[in-house]
Amino acid sequence: MPSMYDAIIVGGGINGGSIAYSLAKRGKKVLLLEKDRLGSKSSNAAAGMLAAQAELNEDGPLFQLAKKSRAMFPLLAEEIKELSGIDIELVNKGMYKIALSEEEEHQYKQIIDIQRQTGELAEWITGEEVRRREPSLSEAITGAVYIEKDGQVSAPKLTLGFLKAAAALGVEIKEYTEVLSFHVEKGKIAGVKTNSGNFESETVIVAGGAWSQKILSEADVKLKTYPVKGECFSVLTHQPLINGTIFSHGCYLVPKKGGRLLVGATVKPNTFDQTVTVDGIGSLMEKAKKIVPSIVNAEWEKAWAGIRPQTSDSLPYLGEHPNYKGLFIATGHFRNGILLSPITGEMISNLIDGESTPIDLTAFRIDRHVRTIV
Amino acid sequence: MPSMYDAIIVGGGINGGSIAYSLAKRGKKVLLLEKDRLGSKSSNAAAGMLAAQAELNEDGPLFQLAKKSRAMFPLLAEEIKELSGIDIELVNKGMYKIALSEEEEHQYKQIIDIQRQTGELAEWITGEEVRRREPSLSEAITGAVYIEKDGQVSAPKLTLGFLKAAAALGVEIKEYTEVLSFHVEKGKIAGVKTNSGNFESETVIVAGGAWSQKILSEADVKLKTYPVKGECFSVLTHQPLINGTIFSHGCYLVPKKGGRLLVGATVKPNTFDQTVTVDGIGSLMEKAKKIVPSIVNAEWEKAWAGIRPQTSDSLPYLGEHPNYKGLFIATGHFRNGILLSPITGEMISNLIDGESTPIDLTAFRIDRHVRTIV
Amino acid sequence: MPSMYDAIIVGGGINGGSIAYSLAKRGKKVLLLEKDRLGSKSSNAAAGMLAAQAELNEDGPLFQLAKKSRAMFPLLAEEIKELSGIDIELVNKGMYKIALSEEEEHQYKQIIDIQRQTGELAEWITGEEVRRREPSLSEAITGAVYIEKDGQVSAPKLTLGFLKAAAALGVEIKEYTEVLSFHVEKGKIAGVKTNSGNFESETVIVAGGAWSQKILSEADVKLKTYPVKGECFSVLTHQPLINGTIFSHGCYLVPKKGGRLLVGATVKPNTFDQTVTVDGIGSLMEKAKKIVPSIVNAEWEKAWAGIRPQTSDSLPYLGEHPNYKGLFIATGHFRNGILLSPITGEMISNLIDGESTPIDLTAFRIDRHVRTIV
Amino acid sequence: MPSMYDAIIVGGGINGGSIAYSLAKRGKKVLLLEKDRLGSKSSNAAAGMLAAQAELNEDGPLFQLAKKSRAMFPLLAEEIKELSGIDIELVNKGMYKIALSEEEEHQYKQIIDIQRQTGELAEWITGEEVRRREPSLSEAITGAVYIEKDGQVSAPKLTLGFLKAAAALGVEIKEYTEVLSFHVEKGKIAGVKTNSGNFESETVIVAGGAWSQKILSEADVKLKTYPVKGECFSVLTHQPLINGTIFSHGCYLVPKKGGRLLVGATVKPNTFDQTVTVDGIGSLMEKAKKIVPSIVNAEWEKAWAGIRPQTSDSLPYLGEHPNYKGLFIATGHFRNGILLSPITGEMISNLIDGESTPIDLTAFRIDRHVRTIV
Repeated sequence: MPSMYDAIIVGGGINGGSIAYSLAKRGKKVLLLEKDRLGSKSSNAAAGMLAAQAELNEDGPLFQLAKKSRAMFPLLAEEIKELSGIDIELVNKGMYKIALSEEEEHQYKQIIDIQRQTGELAEWITGEEVRRREPSLSEAITGAVYIEKDGQVSAPKLTLGFLKAAAALGVEIKEYTEVLSFHVEKGKIAGVKTNSGNFESETVIVAGGAWSQKILSEADVKLKTYPVKGECFSVLTHQPLINGTIFSHGCYLVPKKGGRLLVGATVKPNTFDQTVTVDGIGSLMEKAKKIVPSIVNAEWEKAWAGIRPQTSDSLPYLGEHPNYKGLFIATGHFRNGILLSPITGEMISNLIDGESTPIDLTAFRIDRHVRTIV
Repeated sequence: MPSMYDAIIVGGGINGGSIAYSLAKRGKKVLLLEKDRLGSKSSNAAAGMLAAQAELNEDGPLFQLAKKSRAMFPLLAEEIKELSGIDIELVNKGMYKIALSEEEEHQYKQIIDIQRQTGELAEWITGEEVRRREPSLSEAITGAVYIEKDGQVSAPKLTLGFLKAAAALGVEIKEYTEVLSFHVEKGKIAGVKTNSGNFESETVIVAGGAWSQKILSEADVKLKTYPVKGECFSVLTHQPLINGTIFSHGCYLVPKKGGRLLVGATVKPNTFDQTVTVDGIGSLMEKAKKIVPSIVNAEWEKAWAGIRPQTSDSLPYLGEHPNYKGLFIATGHFRNGILLSPITGEMISNLIDGESTPIDLTAFRIDRHVRTIV
Repeated sequence: MPSMYDAIIVGGGINGGSIAYSLAKRGKKVLLLEKDRLGSKSSNAAAGMLAAQAELNEDGPLFQLAKKSRAMFPLLAEEIKELSGIDIELVNKGMYKIALSEEEEHQYKQIIDIQRQTGELAEWITGEEVRRREPSLSEAITGAVYIEKDGQVSAPKLTLGFLKAAAALGVEIKEYTEVLSFHVEKGKIAGVKTNSGNFESETVIVAGGAWSQKILSEADVKLKTYPVKGECFSVLTHQPLINGTIFSHGCYLVPKKGGRLLVGATVKPNTFDQTVTVDGIGSLMEKAKKIVPSIVNAEWEKAWAGIRPQTSDSLPYLGEHPNYKGLFIATGHFRNGILLSPITGEMISNLIDGESTPIDLTAFRIDRHVRTIV
Repeated sequence: MPSMYDAIIVGGGINGGSIAYSLAKRGKKVLLLEKDRLGSKSSNAAAGMLAAQAELNEDGPLFQLAKKSRAMFPLLAEEIKELSGIDIELVNKGMYKIALSEEEEHQYKQIIDIQRQTGELAEWITGEEVRRREPSLSEAITGAVYIEKDGQVSAPKLTLGFLKAAAALGVEIKEYTEVLSFHVEKGKIAGVKTNSGNFESETVIVAGGAWSQKILSEADVKLKTYPVKGECFSVLTHQPLINGTIFSHGCYLVPKKGGRLLVGATVKPNTFDQTVTVDGIGSLMEKAKKIVPSIVNAEWEKAWAGIRPQTSDSLPYLGEHPNYKGLFIATGHFRNGILLSPITGEMISNLIDGESTPIDLTAFRIDRHVRTIV
């Protein structure tokens, strides 16, 4: 007897949404389960940088994944707009990875060399040139790596966009539905048990962000992930303070539509506590003032936090459960969850369909740590 | 080696708060764990009626429990105000259980007889008398049971009041901390494992409302509870529309401070979905208009919903786990969670301290269904 | 001595924004003053229908204005997105003016004839055809006028889009700045006095919506406008209930991105009271249920109201003050404020620059009522 | 022909509410008009300190007024609770006016002497003693004036409490009703013209806070007041950081029920702009951290601002219009609006009823500046 659903996705955030959307485009009958509200956790808290080059300093599987994912955004933006009406606010005005000391300047110039060797565009521009392009930036900036291709999106809009585009393609969505355990038959996944009944499928994908570890403990998987809180705040001005995205050590500034400016993010490991502290806001403010002094006159809007899943080797988990056939996992994206979401959806779909993936996923296997030990 | 805490409470709602407060008054070192935010679920959604007589139609252990709990509120209000500054908004202006048909009238008069036999005050008043006291009430009301002692409180304030009064007495509170499993040693509880580390205690109390069943499945307890959604809305006027609380079949109206009027509540079983539907609001509006016609001119404020735990025999669970010594359970209060909270805190404290309880708790035992079957 | 500003705009709503944007495109130095927050009144409350044909039943100057304005949206959407990043969510999926009785059917068919004579597309489709295209619609619908070119936008996004695009072009914006009186020298406007100082310009435009009358009383203009409250509510579903906009007598349903559905709007004249009543919501719900029965299962989101300026002849005021040269007025748009905003900006700019307007504005003159009397 | 109302109050904030309440207690038929929502401006933004001694350093009419008003709170709290159900959260745990330098210490000790001469309690306590009582306070504090009688209330609750208690006594309230001008007949007030019609009374009281000046310009009064923005923020902890109120130069910390701590307030003159700036929050945070270092770990809640009316001689205006008999004015309370509200209500009622006032109001006369000039 065939299962009712071709696939069940556990998690209604950015990656659950992307996987749902990707599977729906392939004509699958998909059920997406979210324990709370759609996009209510870190997907909604993210600043939305597509910092493939600014965030990652060296070549390797994660860098390859990031670049491929970044390239998918322009077409994705059109599709989501068409299907759901949602504009993901993709902006391609470049990113400035700014240096505030000679040491940083030296280090960043080396990174430019590395990235150019991989075929990526990256150029060093002087402090004067930075300020010519972005007059609000501080005199303290000695220069910057200008990365033409690193842009940004609205993370909440992209999350909702994936999910609502998926719904438009027929994906069934259930909120307030928490997966309690998995049905497994002879080493194969058969469905899930939830607080609102049982659902059957021979394919289940866990994309629960920082909460994946807990869900998967019911499937005898001990993921090496831990939660990392990131706090952000936003300010408003009528004329934008900056146009490009500013990336610096410990602080980034991401200009959004209509004069909103996002400032993020603290890094506080090992907590699920989503509250914002005075300390968190204060330290971000200090850093932001050093980069854009006139931010002091901007209107305060609000502060918030999200909990991101980090892994012990800083690589996400993307793959099939080693013992439960049909149980797929996509988590551990840490600060790259938005950037990596399009490729995550496609790769997981490839794996489900038994297709080869455009990028070798060995580094992201679920059992990589176990294998290392043995 | 002694445990770090005298007791660990799982659940930061009305009953977790009451138990924490009661134990703290006895000088215990208590840790309270809440998976989300304090008072963020049905404790915050409740209308706060203390409808010991209006809600319960016959004598029995639940009625005894309810009356005893109702009597605790005046002193409790003072204590909480003193310790936390929070006014729980206890109002003792009586309750009108209104009849809209001869059939209801007949039925309610019988209930008056029953309640009087148990020594409770309850009187029948005519429709004219009802409207004399509450001029906004409809001509359609044929009469009412007037219950002098049934009052109301602010459920959100009482919840926060318990919790903050408990904190003032030294209870440690951790939000965003979810219990994943229990530590059990030789049939005795030893602590809990959470998403934020392990905590040790030889006494653990689960007071997780509709979520208790899930937590307890990790302790091999299958509670016969199910979630029941209740939707409410509120309106505002400068002069209060009514002064007493109005209780009718399928709809109650609870006047709050400053001219706010709460209208509740729908009864939708077997769902954890906390969203409000158009249907839910629409049906409540229709009922409310029949009782207070001028509500149509009131200002709409907002709508919300909460998920209450109901049991198969409509009695809460109050007792110790049959197999895990030291694991106590308080859940299944359905529509009486606010009313029963003071006595719940005291009874659970009694059980923990090995004291006799003022009311026989046999009917509320955890293993009552098992015993019935055997 | 030249004035500091080429123009001062009084009002930070949809039409103030459009005029600011239009003047900025012409290279003017503009100051926009808003007494509260930008877009905080009816511009934010509107459902955003572009119902040139659905709302207006006969040819005439207002119909001409509406059609011309409607045609401006596609290009405008691109410009605003480019300048401010804001997507105004222009949707061109047509509008259904539905009939619920034979009488309406008869009447609507006559309107089709009239509109076709003016060169507009409008076709009658049967109830079956309506439900084929929009399966959620009720059996009670006997048919509909399908108007291909009437679409919709997000009114809040368009308002903010105009304003932020204007800011990007150099317009200076001051919120919380209330105009108290006008400076007039020898019959010519010279500036304004506000609660935050004086500002000079030989051109002042009042676009204060329902509040224009009050401001203009300081300029000896007695506009024949009155405020009309409109209440709305919104619901959410994952899959959209409808795709096209539904227009009926006393109720319209406007589908927004991501599954949001707006239901509007009541018509309550002669009040500035922005509160929503139980009656307002209840009557809209009843009408909406008759059109889309399954709306009862949708998630309730929220309710709100806006105050729209209506005039005694149902035509907006667009023109120059009869006695104060340089003082321009744009108000009285009632239910067509969003639709007419692009043309309003352009026409007022034409008048300011002494250019001829593409449409004869005689019918919209400020002194039209005075002239009638004399 | 008698007027419809005994009195019309213009302004639905703290002082309008107090006057309404005071007049209603005297049996008057009162209409209160508010242009926006009740208590939506600085009355809602205030921290609620009753700093009669901490704020005012020397004897004089304002000090006398403040002391008398402070003494009215305990009874007032009971009355409001009884009439409206609203707890104004009066706290009498004393106030610490802390010194952070020898200079401040010297200055404060002198103030103690002055206040003692007026019969008030005030004592100097050492830094050690301050920290013994309030262990969260910083080592940097050299000592403090402890003022036993200065307490605090919830400003929003007191405002709403006055208004709803007044409503319970029969006061009619109209929101969204803006006074446009006054009716004056033969030097006597006869009523007001509003955006929602005309209302007649031979007594009109303007209590419009920072907006009074604008309203009164229609009555040929040029008050010497100017608006002063004050920004605040709040944090949350489970156990209160402090119990008493802390008053220091440029920053105060006011503990509220349930672990909320208010930090205020900046002083930014000559603006009606109610937005909060990054600078405002940042500077308050710095000051608060110096006083309560552990505030860095507290949960950030929110920030807000209010606009307070200041006068050129720092004294409020309390009296009758010099030329328009029956027009009374109560404004200019600056940082003492909450503290002075009870006495303001009573004094204005005295004036209206032609009674002598317990305190000589000469210093607060409306025409005091004119008289000085002449």
